[in-house]
Amino acid sequence: MADGHRPPTVQGREFFTAITVADALAGFEPARRTPIESVAVPDARGRVPAAPVHSPAALPGFARSTVDGYAVRATDTFGASESLPGYLEVVGAVRMGAAPTVAVTTGGAVTMPTGGALPEGADAVMMVEHTQATMPGTIEVTRPVAAGENIVRADEDIAVDAVLVPAGRPLRPQDLGVLAAAGVTEVAVHIRPRVAVLSTGDEVVPPSTPHLEPGKVRDATASALAGLIDEAGGDADLRGIVPDDAGALDAALRSALADADVVVVSAGSSVGARDETAGVVAGLEPPGIFCHGLAVKPGKPTLLAECDGVPIIGLPGNPLSALVVFRLVGLPLVRRVGGWTVTPVEPTSSATLTRPVASAAGRRDVVQVRLGDDGTADPLTGASALLSLLTQADGYLVVPEAATGIDAGATVEVTHYQ
Amino acid sequence: MADGHRPPTVQGREFFTAITVADALAGFEPARRTPIESVAVPDARGRVPAAPVHSPAALPGFARSTVDGYAVRATDTFGASESLPGYLEVVGAVRMGAAPTVAVTTGGAVTMPTGGALPEGADAVMMVEHTQATMPGTIEVTRPVAAGENIVRADEDIAVDAVLVPAGRPLRPQDLGVLAAAGVTEVAVHIRPRVAVLSTGDEVVPPSTPHLEPGKVRDATASALAGLIDEAGGDADLRGIVPDDAGALDAALRSALADADVVVVSAGSSVGARDETAGVVAGLEPPGIFCHGLAVKPGKPTLLAECDGVPIIGLPGNPLSALVVFRLVGLPLVRRVGGWTVTPVEPTSSATLTRPVASAAGRRDVVQVRLGDDGTADPLTGASALLSLLTQADGYLVVPEAATGIDAGATVEVTHYQ
Repeated sequence: MADGHRPPTVQGREFFTAITVADALAGFEPARRTPIESVAVPDARGRVPAAPVHSPAALPGFARSTVDGYAVRATDTFGASESLPGYLEVVGAVRMGAAPTVAVTTGGAVTMPTGGALPEGADAVMMVEHTQATMPGTIEVTRPVAAGENIVRADEDIAVDAVLVPAGRPLRPQDLGVLAAAGVTEVAVHIRPRVAVLSTGDEVVPPSTPHLEPGKVRDATASALAGLIDEAGGDADLRGIVPDDAGALDAALRSALADADVVVVSAGSSVGARDETAGVVAGLEPPGIFCHGLAVKPGKPTLLAECDGVPIIGLPGNPLSALVVFRLVGLPLVRRVGGWTVTPVEPTSSATLTRPVASAAGRRDVVQVRLGDDGTADPLTGASALLSLLTQADGYLVVPEAATGIDAGATVEVTHYQ
Repeated sequence: MADGHRPPTVQGREFFTAITVADALAGFEPARRTPIESVAVPDARGRVPAAPVHSPAALPGFARSTVDGYAVRATDTFGASESLPGYLEVVGAVRMGAAPTVAVTTGGAVTMPTGGALPEGADAVMMVEHTQATMPGTIEVTRPVAAGENIVRADEDIAVDAVLVPAGRPLRPQDLGVLAAAGVTEVAVHIRPRVAVLSTGDEVVPPSTPHLEPGKVRDATASALAGLIDEAGGDADLRGIVPDDAGALDAALRSALADADVVVVSAGSSVGARDETAGVVAGLEPPGIFCHGLAVKPGKPTLLAECDGVPIIGLPGNPLSALVVFRLVGLPLVRRVGGWTVTPVEPTSSATLTRPVASAAGRRDVVQVRLGDDGTADPLTGASALLSLLTQADGYLVVPEAATGIDAGATVEVTHYQ
């Protein structure tokens, strides 16, 4: 935890006070970053460089023609026009992919392919379209070229030591291309954060349970979290279901803290189970609860803590709430631990709200919506926060803290699920 | 290839005519789809179900309370008010995660936790806030509840046989959650398309080449294509550099066709190398060139073909052009072969163009842009199409076929690279 952001202890009054999402994102800043590993460039999409990568070489590395034509000395073409063409002697040809074997001297020209290396003595390339073959071995040029025209300089694409890719931004396909072009075949990136997921709750049974006894519920949250963790560039470590028992939870938590870069506790939905999670986290040494309660709906009973440098997120027991809040605060946290210093741009679109949505001032509301073909966004609300709302949704809209709701007919910005 | 979309043969006049990107996307529709494999649900984010997955069970599977309170018979509460409270006998309690061991009969109530299974005989739950404990074993209720109030029905979240996830849409984190909730632990998805990448061109050398001879260029395109193929959900198989020789290219192409779901030929940039690629593809049996030439800048010398059910994309030799055109036509093709039936929503934003961009009617232009903090989009244009343009770009804008350019100051829609 950065200095100046000491978490309030369990004794602090903040412990029971919901803080805003913005305050949580700004204030909960664990310093942990995963170590570095070396990855082959073609496999490195989405991986996060730990330091800027500098180019070991200039690119293209030699002056190169950008057209098919003739390498010339520009001064030899000055004054050439349709009415008063100049004449140059073709003294040789550059072959694609080969070093030039001939130089250009005054009055001479060398045949060039696009991409070919400029021969010594030449300082421009005349496009073939602006020449005519008159006699064998001679071309007529009908306009002048300036020095440097139709040429890429030896370091015009990349200079030696230029930054090929910055630190902290996941590598994009074209970044892999420029690394390869510069002769970089391996790149030092942050290891994917290992995110341990503990499920708690006496009512929770494994997804493989074929038949549910009344009162039981299969663990939906852990599998969905695995997907969200993957989306954030982490590796999920689903550690199974821990009984609602302080001793068992404490042991499971300590074991997870020893192995993981981030620990997520998917809390039982009963008040007792939730309090137990908070109690066990509060009992860890050193104590490091940052907040217990976020001003967000759904997702209020969220706990953020840090123990020995490992961030801990305690999620609400309701799967819908857990997934909404993990998207809000868990994705940025996992990315940060994995070395991201940028925020990804989410796909969004504008839509017209079909029905009003209510909110409360001071609270951020995340509302699932279904998008219509007619540019509408239909809020999926219901008394019961069921997981199927989230699978029916095409995306979500956010009612900010300052608003108390959004009217039907308003234009809203919907973030799309992918 | 679907009926009605027979590709013109090499003899057809279309062979040398550039077609529009829209016509290429609509008309080039290889029927190939990858086979199916079974994947564990927590590992299935982004994987594409081959068929809709139906729920083997109803969810939650039993009627459940959504509040802390008392399970009651609704008729027992009718008429209850602050001034005329009703009285119910607490006959037992439901424990979280356990089957009820007591039933509710007339005049009775059973203590309920949120999420607890509704006992027999009860048809509603009275919130604890609307009750008062008066004498031990008795509660006073101060308002009526309707039948079904504060209850989730046994199949309210998911009905038996309801579609949990559709075919053809990549699985999102919440989809993994709902599958797990229904007891589905494995899902049948399309195998990731295997995309073979052949690099050609006598000037092209492997990225591991420490020092470039004049005229040589390291293979940047293959590594960048590996990233784009990964983005499309495919597995890249980089098969190295093939010499500019019809026999070698023919052998490499036939070998790739035998192994791959899609074959990409990253062509040499010389006219000769390009023609050779087209010639070798045209010589395959059965012949299946769909088009050679796309009305797009950069990227015109693009070839689309199909041989024995395997789509082939021939890319321009310039890496920037190759990557632009692969994003345009390669990503949708790989996704389609991998079972996608939806188009992903790209992250976009509006920006003000700082400088005019020129285009030509009938051609689609893809212009790389850098985004300013002040909401501007600066077009990155240059005489020479250098790869570094693409790494400097934050995204791109498209000048559609109908336009001949965009004026400075215009509002443009920029698609962000991630």
